[in-house]
Amino acid sequence: MERYDVVIIGAGPAGMTASVYAVRANMKTLLLDKLAPGGQIVNTNEIANYVGTGVINGAELAIKMFEQSQETGAEFDYKTVTAIEDHGDYKVVVCEEDNARIEATAVIIATGTRPRRLHIPGEDLHTGAGISWCAICDGAQYKGKDVVVIGGGNSAVEESIYLAGIVNKLTIVTMFDLTADPKVCDKLRAMPNVTIYPYQDVLEFTGTDKLEGVRFKSTKEDATERFVACDGVFEYIGLEPTAGFCKDLGILDRMGCIKTDECMRTSVPGIFGAGDIIAKQLRQVATACGDGAIAAHNAASYVEKQR
Amino acid sequence: MERYDVVIIGAGPAGMTASVYAVRANMKTLLLDKLAPGGQIVNTNEIANYVGTGVINGAELAIKMFEQSQETGAEFDYKTVTAIEDHGDYKVVVCEEDNARIEATAVIIATGTRPRRLHIPGEDLHTGAGISWCAICDGAQYKGKDVVVIGGGNSAVEESIYLAGIVNKLTIVTMFDLTADPKVCDKLRAMPNVTIYPYQDVLEFTGTDKLEGVRFKSTKEDATERFVACDGVFEYIGLEPTAGFCKDLGILDRMGCIKTDECMRTSVPGIFGAGDIIAKQLRQVATACGDGAIAAHNAASYVEKQR
Repeated sequence: MERYDVVIIGAGPAGMTASVYAVRANMKTLLLDKLAPGGQIVNTNEIANYVGTGVINGAELAIKMFEQSQETGAEFDYKTVTAIEDHGDYKVVVCEEDNARIEATAVIIATGTRPRRLHIPGEDLHTGAGISWCAICDGAQYKGKDVVVIGGGNSAVEESIYLAGIVNKLTIVTMFDLTADPKVCDKLRAMPNVTIYPYQDVLEFTGTDKLEGVRFKSTKEDATERFVACDGVFEYIGLEPTAGFCKDLGILDRMGCIKTDECMRTSVPGIFGAGDIIAKQLRQVATACGDGAIAAHNAASYVEKQR
Repeated sequence: MERYDVVIIGAGPAGMTASVYAVRANMKTLLLDKLAPGGQIVNTNEIANYVGTGVINGAELAIKMFEQSQETGAEFDYKTVTAIEDHGDYKVVVCEEDNARIEATAVIIATGTRPRRLHIPGEDLHTGAGISWCAICDGAQYKGKDVVVIGGGNSAVEESIYLAGIVNKLTIVTMFDLTADPKVCDKLRAMPNVTIYPYQDVLEFTGTDKLEGVRFKSTKEDATERFVACDGVFEYIGLEPTAGFCKDLGILDRMGCIKTDECMRTSVPGIFGAGDIIAKQLRQVATACGDGAIAAHNAASYVEKQR
């Protein structure tokens, strides 16, 4: 088996930036993802705050980043990683496909996060046919229909603005008040077809063959229970880390995020973290790319020292 | 005088990213620079590791970033900042031009760094006519002539590769060995018109009316002294911080860089740092943009709390 200098797990903005830095540092580099490259940005309609590209569709930015990674010379493969074995001066990345075992001197984990779910009655039943986590993927099918958005953070509010321009009536149900940037909250509140219910517990998605609506209850003293009929639901209630496969390494915090220092090093020499999966304040494309650069720079230094 | 929510000093990648985040957070935002927007990237021929833009000329990337900042709604002005006064819940940014005093609730300092100089005989005499700090600006005038590059880091090596494609003979004189990425070092060493002298002290630039050459001496035991005749010199010996104007605030380290926490906060509430000017390991466009996003996010939170 050939040993790579650097294996990067996860081909989002952090992983793709890391791949460019690793290759340019003369590292034999392999970038892995179980899905198409891009990570969460693939599901983002419009990215306006990554300066230099202009306002850009997330899937389009993903393609541009991947092309740059490929042109720089990074290898890419579709793999689902199930474990990382630490053998001291080398690591083994264990994959689901064909039980592949990939040797690497250094590993960068950049697997990001995935949408959190409510785990309430009706959610499993209507998943993928009524309940969605991606407005840009599924929004168009609700043109002229009524939808409910669950959540009040940046993603919820920004995707609601997008959806409200498509659908007939949009209702937002959220556990607290809107917590997104004030400017986008103002914009959403000013839209004529939008109703917002803050401080609510979502109880149930109703309907048997087909989603019929959402039941929720006020968390205020009145505890008023409401039902809103709808054709579709979009959940934006946060993200879950995806690094369960490396829980035995002792590098995760209690939320499941990877603990790193400012050089993106974990407590295991030769294993680095980057992007949304690390414990940090702000998860953005710009910060993910910065992390990826730092992780690859330090992974390359580590590999050079091992030689 | 109108008070801004956020004033950003320095319109490089960090400052421009910060401006986009600040405006999108509904902040009344002013971006200042004494020079054309872009910062150090304006002097960089080719930027290959900012993923999403492809390999791009630095000045071109600067224009794209600035357009995005302007389209988002950031104000820009040419100003040379001479001091920041801390008045507790507001700051005053003092400018050289017309003694302008600009009030702001929060200030983000993103002034970057500037090229370090050798301070040896002949340097002042030939500055701007023989000695340069920017290959992309001045390289073309040495087509078919001989040049010396001082330095051995990433900038020195990358700009040498660029220059070697233009000039007749290129000589690198550096204090240690080449410290740039191995891949680019290999590329440079393989170029037929390049000679490298590592472990040298540069003593003098000779010539009176016109630069004639460079005298330097080995730092090894032999202490051999050499003279290389040349038509031009390019110095790439590192960068100096540019935040002297805020030394009275007690936010600088002994190198003159701004000390920040991971939220880009300085020790003065309401004053933030971002980009190359902060004390950190890796100075890259990607890391500067990440810093800018974090600084503006936290500056906006600070401003919201002051209201």
